[in-house]
Amino acid sequence: MVTSAVVNTYPLSSYTFGTKEPKMEKDTSVADRLARMKVNYMKEGMRTSVEAILLVQEHNHPHILLLQIGNTFCKLPGGRLKPGENEIEGLKRKLTSKLGANSANLVPDWQIGECVAIWWRPNFETIMYPYCPPHITKPKECKKLFLVHLSEREYFAVPKNLKLLAVPLFELYDNVQRYGPVISTIPQQLSRFQFNMISS
Amino acid sequence: MVTSAVVNTYPLSSYTFGTKEPKMEKDTSVADRLARMKVNYMKEGMRTSVEAILLVQEHNHPHILLLQIGNTFCKLPGGRLKPGENEIEGLKRKLTSKLGANSANLVPDWQIGECVAIWWRPNFETIMYPYCPPHITKPKECKKLFLVHLSEREYFAVPKNLKLLAVPLFELYDNVQRYGPVISTIPQQLSRFQFNMISS
Repeated sequence: MVTSAVVNTYPLSSYTFGTKEPKMEKDTSVADRLARMKVNYMKEGMRTSVEAILLVQEHNHPHILLLQIGNTFCKLPGGRLKPGENEIEGLKRKLTSKLGANSANLVPDWQIGECVAIWWRPNFETIMYPYCPPHITKPKECKKLFLVHLSEREYFAVPKNLKLLAVPLFELYDNVQRYGPVISTIPQQLSRFQFNMISS
Repeated sequence: MVTSAVVNTYPLSSYTFGTKEPKMEKDTSVADRLARMKVNYMKEGMRTSVEAILLVQEHNHPHILLLQIGNTFCKLPGGRLKPGENEIEGLKRKLTSKLGANSANLVPDWQIGECVAIWWRPNFETIMYPYCPPHITKPKECKKLFLVHLSEREYFAVPKNLKLLAVPLFELYDNVQRYGPVISTIPQQLSRFQFNMISS
């Protein structure tokens, strides 16, 4: 795990993007998703999910890589840990599944950095909070966001059904309507870091 | 400087609150404040201000101490650094000025922790951003928020013209109308910490 107050950020153009087989969503509706969450909770207890903040720069401003599904919904790369799985190892597994090439020697050496935010889901509902609300003794999900330090050159293989977007912090900020509460406050979470913008 | 992912949080009732002479605001209007900021900028360059997040617990939920001026406006304790002043020492000076007793042996031993957020003011206007916006080469203010670790027992002397409030995270969250963008996203900034709630 890498922790540093200074984060090297390389130009988007220094990365290469290819495609790979589609990664379909497991659920076709929010209701299906919450129902599956409930079934899994009964079997395995609280879900822990881990998501990555991958940073690049354009015009000397930090941008975050988001996966877009369809025309509107954006999410961070990541996913659910297996029961008992280590967070760092689990996030690497999920990143490779979402964005790694099929040949192992092209998969990025994911450098997982600091946890920058933790969100809690108190009920089998979509709403999450950046704290465990009072009187909630059995939260249903804990979602952790980690900064991931990218090397200067990497190859990303993007599932054919998804788009990978580089979204500037100024677009995310104060834009809960478009990006939701978790992604739209990433600029605040990252504000304490100093970005060392490296030109190509 | 104290950095720890675990933050001990003591009950509000373990602290003692007294009063001291009023600390009046230097400006009587927002326009006056921005005008004074401009004059100071011409003399001293970018303003750096430092503010403290002081945590207590009630009902096992974290609360933040805010100073209330009049009936509505709330602010974090802190203030502007002198030119060249060290951030940590400057924050201790400001905390003592705002909340310390007049007798030195009663002043808390301020344990300044991690910087949790940095906000930028690009122009002589009220709006701030959690990043320096693109094309802004000379921001007018940089405001840094630090976690401050309180000991189990402390005495706070509150200026007579102010009220000190303990506001729960769930009240701050998503409440930009009441608390503004900086204070209302403190719950997200603190989400990565684990609060060790200590009973009295």
